[in-house]
Amino acid sequence: MRKPTFLAVLLWICISMNSIANDGYKLWLDYQPIEESQLKSEVESLLGGVYFFGENPTFEAIKNELDLASKSMLGKAPIYSKERLQNTKLWIGTRDQLSQVLSLDQQAEIKALGEDGYWRGTVELDGKSFYAIVGNQPVGTLYGVYNWINSIQSNTFDKGTEISDSPKIKIRMLNHWDNLDRTVERGYAGFSIWDWHRLPGYIDPRYIDYARANASIGINAVSLTNVNANALILTTDFMKKVKALADVFRPYGIKVFLTARFSAPIQLEGLKTADPLDPEVQAFWKKKTDEIYSFIPDFGGFLVKANSEGQPGPHEYGRNHAEGANMLADALALHGGVLIWRAFVYSHEDEVDRHMQANNEFEPLDGKFKDNVIIQIKNGAIDFQPREPFHPLYGAINETNVGMEFQITQEYLGQATNLVYLAPMWEEVLKSKTYKPSANSTVGSILEGKETGQKMTLIAGVSNIGTDRNWTGHLFAQSNWFAFGKMAWNPEVTSEEIAEEWTKLTFGQDSEVVSKVGEILLESHETAVDYMTPLGLHHIMGRSHHYGPGPWVMGGRADWTAPYYHQADSLGIGFDRTADGSGALTQYAPEIVEKWSDPNQIPEKFLLWFHHLPWDYQLKDGNTLWEGIAYHYDRGVKEVRQMQQTWASLESKIDPEEFDHVRQLLEVQEQEAEWWRNACLLYFQTFSKRPFPADIEQPEGDLEYYKSLRFPNAPGI
Amino acid sequence: MRKPTFLAVLLWICISMNSIANDGYKLWLDYQPIEESQLKSEVESLLGGVYFFGENPTFEAIKNELDLASKSMLGKAPIYSKERLQNTKLWIGTRDQLSQVLSLDQQAEIKALGEDGYWRGTVELDGKSFYAIVGNQPVGTLYGVYNWINSIQSNTFDKGTEISDSPKIKIRMLNHWDNLDRTVERGYAGFSIWDWHRLPGYIDPRYIDYARANASIGINAVSLTNVNANALILTTDFMKKVKALADVFRPYGIKVFLTARFSAPIQLEGLKTADPLDPEVQAFWKKKTDEIYSFIPDFGGFLVKANSEGQPGPHEYGRNHAEGANMLADALALHGGVLIWRAFVYSHEDEVDRHMQANNEFEPLDGKFKDNVIIQIKNGAIDFQPREPFHPLYGAINETNVGMEFQITQEYLGQATNLVYLAPMWEEVLKSKTYKPSANSTVGSILEGKETGQKMTLIAGVSNIGTDRNWTGHLFAQSNWFAFGKMAWNPEVTSEEIAEEWTKLTFGQDSEVVSKVGEILLESHETAVDYMTPLGLHHIMGRSHHYGPGPWVMGGRADWTAPYYHQADSLGIGFDRTADGSGALTQYAPEIVEKWSDPNQIPEKFLLWFHHLPWDYQLKDGNTLWEGIAYHYDRGVKEVRQMQQTWASLESKIDPEEFDHVRQLLEVQEQEAEWWRNACLLYFQTFSKRPFPADIEQPEGDLEYYKSLRFPNAPGI
Repeated sequence: MRKPTFLAVLLWICISMNSIANDGYKLWLDYQPIEESQLKSEVESLLGGVYFFGENPTFEAIKNELDLASKSMLGKAPIYSKERLQNTKLWIGTRDQLSQVLSLDQQAEIKALGEDGYWRGTVELDGKSFYAIVGNQPVGTLYGVYNWINSIQSNTFDKGTEISDSPKIKIRMLNHWDNLDRTVERGYAGFSIWDWHRLPGYIDPRYIDYARANASIGINAVSLTNVNANALILTTDFMKKVKALADVFRPYGIKVFLTARFSAPIQLEGLKTADPLDPEVQAFWKKKTDEIYSFIPDFGGFLVKANSEGQPGPHEYGRNHAEGANMLADALALHGGVLIWRAFVYSHEDEVDRHMQANNEFEPLDGKFKDNVIIQIKNGAIDFQPREPFHPLYGAINETNVGMEFQITQEYLGQATNLVYLAPMWEEVLKSKTYKPSANSTVGSILEGKETGQKMTLIAGVSNIGTDRNWTGHLFAQSNWFAFGKMAWNPEVTSEEIAEEWTKLTFGQDSEVVSKVGEILLESHETAVDYMTPLGLHHIMGRSHHYGPGPWVMGGRADWTAPYYHQADSLGIGFDRTADGSGALTQYAPEIVEKWSDPNQIPEKFLLWFHHLPWDYQLKDGNTLWEGIAYHYDRGVKEVRQMQQTWASLESKIDPEEFDHVRQLLEVQEQEAEWWRNACLLYFQTFSKRPFPADIEQPEGDLEYYKSLRFPNAPGI
Repeated sequence: MRKPTFLAVLLWICISMNSIANDGYKLWLDYQPIEESQLKSEVESLLGGVYFFGENPTFEAIKNELDLASKSMLGKAPIYSKERLQNTKLWIGTRDQLSQVLSLDQQAEIKALGEDGYWRGTVELDGKSFYAIVGNQPVGTLYGVYNWINSIQSNTFDKGTEISDSPKIKIRMLNHWDNLDRTVERGYAGFSIWDWHRLPGYIDPRYIDYARANASIGINAVSLTNVNANALILTTDFMKKVKALADVFRPYGIKVFLTARFSAPIQLEGLKTADPLDPEVQAFWKKKTDEIYSFIPDFGGFLVKANSEGQPGPHEYGRNHAEGANMLADALALHGGVLIWRAFVYSHEDEVDRHMQANNEFEPLDGKFKDNVIIQIKNGAIDFQPREPFHPLYGAINETNVGMEFQITQEYLGQATNLVYLAPMWEEVLKSKTYKPSANSTVGSILEGKETGQKMTLIAGVSNIGTDRNWTGHLFAQSNWFAFGKMAWNPEVTSEEIAEEWTKLTFGQDSEVVSKVGEILLESHETAVDYMTPLGLHHIMGRSHHYGPGPWVMGGRADWTAPYYHQADSLGIGFDRTADGSGALTQYAPEIVEKWSDPNQIPEKFLLWFHHLPWDYQLKDGNTLWEGIAYHYDRGVKEVRQMQQTWASLESKIDPEEFDHVRQLLEVQEQEAEWWRNACLLYFQTFSKRPFPADIEQPEGDLEYYKSLRFPNAPGI
């Protein structure tokens, strides 16, 4: 009777543990048992004899992952073999290590994949067949292993098919806007996961899960601290803390970057200046950089926001961005470090349309930046609005390394209460034709270095990660972290592909779930644009916290108000950025200028971004502009209700805790969508003086009430 | 083959889930499978037929708990019976509901237990025997159920033994010092678990687990917000959020309190005054209170810090504490609410020893407070120091309701990096003889109302709960939350009993684990006192954040410096509070004054609290005072190392994640203990001018270095 009892006990625990609801902590790495029997026996066979070619910390990370995956997928640990041939089925190593068994062609093919590439497939030796996962470097092998586990989990693993892949972008980076007091600027998922006070003595296990999650989607760099930087991070005390994190991340192929406050020489060393041409300043940065590398030999470099929104920079000393960036780049170059300089600059002293200022500042400097400098440009020229046309700097500077800054955290896109899948928005930007430097250039091809031969490529994303148990506040916001990694690895992948992959890894293979969650994901961005800023409207959100609508926001500098952007008046609405207006449109290629200057040719989604048009202007569907605005807002609300219904129909197929989490938030989203619609339409009606179309849900409430709403202590500020 | 496959799949999951390390989230409610077969079959039988007498939200909470417990302990859900007799084994109800089957004696016995009491035991009906869990109210039944599960988990359940219990204290309350921006004053476990921004729309499942944990240890009240209060919490917007939490807590018998900022009438309503005798002010509070009760009919009341550390209060208007408290109490009385007024008051304008100020202010007001006012008095007169003599207000006011304020969060006791079990410290206070109002009075007997007949009794504890996954930052800090609940329920329970219970519920029944963890727990407080503030030293910690040693802290108001308290000079050390000194000692009963005025009679643990003595003063063990101080500091460090060794010896018996978590923190604690020892001894040596005893580890390092340490953004400020 001994065995049954033991089994029974295990079963109880088992059922009990299963009864624990899913809190989302495991992200897309929540490995499930393999149900398909052939697949299971194949995987069982491979994991029954795993041989590692040599030892290194990354291979330890792979072992850890195989342990976790195997126990979850098969209910048992892998068996590691000490001998390459005996009892061995799965080989894990690098190209060099496997050179004896790979054909010259295979070796060449793998080598061509570059340092992060991997290959997996079957190899033969002494008449025996082995499955091999091979990278050029251990980290490539790690990527290959994640890809392999992923293929098992999504039921697509086929031993007979050779798979190889390599990233199209070299630096795939998360930008944390985490402050040293653990608040997170534009963070909506709790607080910073970096527990600075208890570092370096206490290593939170979460740091390892963070590294696993990033590595599994190819992210290989992380800037730990807010671009509105605190010089304290550069003190020796903090360096020890940063080193502890770098040590955790290194086996996962993740390099650490820090944000450098331009005035640090003054704050930390008491210098009288931070002038980049001052020898003492240069010496400060050289010494500081040397010190960092003494702790972290593979330190990635600095990310700098300078002369923007009050941050210090070279302009204080009559120097330009290139002089500022190059000084720091020189200090880093000795160690192979990279200096990332943000193009998000605009000045309250500059009356020029904010849309134009980055181009005005950076175009004249093209070619003047050092080789290890990358200019990090946001996807659009304003600031992560629900929808923006691509930034005109793409294609405008071609003798300078450029990189992308996407925002994963949903600052203007519903924060952590709205379900908005951002990949379609990013895809729209990446596929945008710039017509510069060549006729077929796109933002994506520029980023990949195809246009200029740029080697040091970068896609960065402002993190949406915090201390919330599910990491991202909204369970569905995990899809944005996931999609960011996938798109940074390959800017040519589609948002549909990513949506399907994420859904399967998160909710399982059920075809109804995959299809309905896919629908929700893929329509969510357009929905949010509809109920927030349709037809090219932008920057009409609540002041400071950016939560909810605020088309009435006035006061302070003009370009922090809403009317600066929507320009609503008795005649019409929209920001004239044509040559007759601010002229921002003229910063784009002539092909674009020509088409977009014509309200009838510009895609309607950008209409009011570039044109001020009368309320009765006729849209393509025959409605007036006023009616069109109203229909868009109304449709946004209705689409949210549709999402609610779709989600409700999946109740029986989704873990109860996850289901209820999303259900609650969709209810909040419905209320917020109504709030946006009501507030914006009631406000714009005070200019249009026109009735709402009869067939929309009539905006209710009192404009004064909406204007009176305050959100003290809203998160993310 | 179907069944085995199914079993196998379950087993895999099972093993996999077990391989997931324990992150401590489940606290002492981490129900384990029952191993003992007789116990198991008994519990299985009872949970196989559970009958509830009627329905109410608390019974739903009980069902939820039985579901969780049964699945974890037995691997299956309970079976709920719809019929009282058929297939029924376990009865759950109230005394009234079970009156038919309880003898008159039993009914009287249960009734005498009061509204929170419970009884469990076997009853007979129609020749059948049933096990019954019975409260006077549903919440008593809930307590009985938790007690029953606890007895199963600790292997002490015996169906034949009748068990009954009831709390000795009426209000058992957590005080959260949580700010509305989610920072927590003196919080070291992350941030506030109250996600105000997403309330009321989003109910975090954690709120329910919080309520379960509290109810399971008898906590029945919670003040949600910092005593350094923000009037915003009293706005209608926030009331809706508070209501959402109150709705979650209600089934668990937990009432919500809020902190009321005394100046709220000015801040919220624009009144010109907050004078408690002003009719408009009174009307404001009445209206505000009525509004709160319209949302939360069982609202507990207000907790107020007034005229202390800069908080507004009645003194601004020439009114005293009683006038301030009574005005608020009147507004609450209409609804049965309670007004808790803190006795932690001291003024920077008052030159009198801070130790004396509370007595000076409150003794003259004794008897002047309304019946629904409770004066909440800290355990000691200074401020939650590592060790304090009991507060002289205990026993000094006897015509006023008094309640205890303990601190669970370890502000001065190592915060979240030191393992310090606080129950022995609380026990020491509760058992302290006050000799007032009667010869046998103790702090505990006063709190229980035994001395004055006080009905509205209160023990409050400043919470150590935050967003950290394990709730309390340090896994062992869970023992302090647990112990607080147990001691608030029964101030006569010993810290040993609680330690054993917590250890078993947290780490299991293994006798070596229970005994060694018990050792660690029970010696930890004395250890911390040794390496922080031995022999009655106090208030020598770092300024503001209170992290680490700061005996040199100077500047600003005198009673915020360290030398004010240690008075070290070339002659000696200690604060003379005898009649010859500040006179604070004279506030105690004559029996105490007499004994403690004599350095040879006062317990040495309080020596320097009340006496300034020469460095060569001879201690009871023959050492000089200087040597004794040095030996205590040194012993503290050595005891931490002993804790490390004891913990290391348990590695094979503790969950690996939990083991490593504590191991890391004990390393940090060792470093911090050394830091305290080195910094304090080097500092005091500048006065004593004496060598360290040769047989201690010689304090190393440079005093200037220790003084230079800064901790920007240390948590909890």
